[in-house]
Amino acid sequence: MTYSEKLIASAAQVGNITCMGLDPQLEVLPFQDGDVRTVLNQFFQVLFRRMVLSGLIPAAFKPNIGYYQALDRPRDEDFSGSLALADVMDMVENFFPGIPIILDSKRGDIARSSLNYANEAFSLWGSDAVTVAPYMGSDSVRPFIDHTPLEKGVYILNRTSNPGGKDLQNLEISGSKGPSLLYQEVARQIISYNDNTGSVGAVVGATNMDELKDIATLYAERSVPMLIPGVGSQGGSAPSVMNALRKSGYPVELARINSSSGLTHPWKKGEAPEEWLKMCETSLRKLLEETKV
Amino acid sequence: MTYSEKLIASAAQVGNITCMGLDPQLEVLPFQDGDVRTVLNQFFQVLFRRMVLSGLIPAAFKPNIGYYQALDRPRDEDFSGSLALADVMDMVENFFPGIPIILDSKRGDIARSSLNYANEAFSLWGSDAVTVAPYMGSDSVRPFIDHTPLEKGVYILNRTSNPGGKDLQNLEISGSKGPSLLYQEVARQIISYNDNTGSVGAVVGATNMDELKDIATLYAERSVPMLIPGVGSQGGSAPSVMNALRKSGYPVELARINSSSGLTHPWKKGEAPEEWLKMCETSLRKLLEETKV
Repeated sequence: MTYSEKLIASAAQVGNITCMGLDPQLEVLPFQDGDVRTVLNQFFQVLFRRMVLSGLIPAAFKPNIGYYQALDRPRDEDFSGSLALADVMDMVENFFPGIPIILDSKRGDIARSSLNYANEAFSLWGSDAVTVAPYMGSDSVRPFIDHTPLEKGVYILNRTSNPGGKDLQNLEISGSKGPSLLYQEVARQIISYNDNTGSVGAVVGATNMDELKDIATLYAERSVPMLIPGVGSQGGSAPSVMNALRKSGYPVELARINSSSGLTHPWKKGEAPEEWLKMCETSLRKLLEETKV
Repeated sequence: MTYSEKLIASAAQVGNITCMGLDPQLEVLPFQDGDVRTVLNQFFQVLFRRMVLSGLIPAAFKPNIGYYQALDRPRDEDFSGSLALADVMDMVENFFPGIPIILDSKRGDIARSSLNYANEAFSLWGSDAVTVAPYMGSDSVRPFIDHTPLEKGVYILNRTSNPGGKDLQNLEISGSKGPSLLYQEVARQIISYNDNTGSVGAVVGATNMDELKDIATLYAERSVPMLIPGVGSQGGSAPSVMNALRKSGYPVELARINSSSGLTHPWKKGEAPEEWLKMCETSLRKLLEETKV
């Protein structure tokens, strides 16, 4: 099954295009007794079990690898954070068969080194897709695309949702076809990498609807998957994203709208409230509804 | 001691500005019996010991984290590669006190996630500096700079040595001060991040001398450290880099000229020859001589 078929099948299976970011922060977890691996395990076990029982299943999961590796203590031979990520991958595969896992690692290096990172994401972690940084250009991106062509997905950072995203991405460049912005040029490169295969996609933030529409229009007829972070805590709204995608004629089942802390710890800061599981359920139910397909 | 003081002191201590990349490839190692961690340990022990005995000491070390993590098998709870990197860091600190370690991980994410990666590089791995990708802009770069201001170094990808580097980095942008190339704009941002502190530097490949001179001229009076990969196997030449730096009036003791496989396995491919240690010594002696300060 190709990556784009997997996107389409999983959206059809669950009836939404939500991507659930899995970026745990120890200090807000409802479980605090035990080592890192144990408390993360407890948390995700309880949460995932409830999701299955309630039939609340998103169309993708996206763990950000940095949240787990930050819990390792490699100089002390302690890899609790990475072990917890391995557990999370196991759990997602078991609880939610058929739902793609996007490893958010934003790697990118010279060719041989990018190959290491492609191996890391696809062979070692066993993810279905990975995020990649574009600054080093084609021979830095290609090892990810060529690793398991079609079968695995590659999302290239395009127009990111953070405030500083504009610093480089919105610089005006003078091309042969008149002036455009850097993110638009990157979008053209992504289209050419993707070449209608649907395995090379773009990370486009939900924080500017005009830019999102602009990009979605470019991608609409070229089957470029879109990974759209920035709804929820970063200020974007899922209904307006859905609206923008539909207005652009974009095939929504190829998109994934991501929320992370808004789904895993909607209380954001401090001790988890007693009704934490209910809060997660409510947030997730709302986003699944808003991203219905 | 600030990072720039550390650069100056280590260059003075060893009399060169070589950075030795530590990117091991299992298949070319002279030791093949034993697990990943054991053979990497044996290799670097023997190599580092010989370097100390021969007085061949570079002015920085740069392990690329991907080469080690690619040897992990996280889904099988096997972190041999990362453990080997921890061993390498221990060995470098013990064999070569005072010599900075640059962790080459090319991270970059939204603010909170970048903070994870800054923690990873500086607190968890204990490196003196880290490489960072610029595409996501200021709030993605700042957590690295603000983590341990002045004390730790941050090298931002600027004009990279790989062939695809030009795909984005050499796009012409139209700025208020007339047209320039993207890497020149990134150089201006780096200067402003650095703000004469000497803790924020730039990765600039040794593969195009005109661009290198151009950038070194910008950095000459602003104490921007330069990390210059691409000599040796990537085709650049250390003497021409030294020449370009000096002609630009750049303070060479703030630069590090990196060679990786050219120093750790100059036989490049296949089984290590019997005289491997001698070959490493010869290559290293040559580069130290060429980068003498």
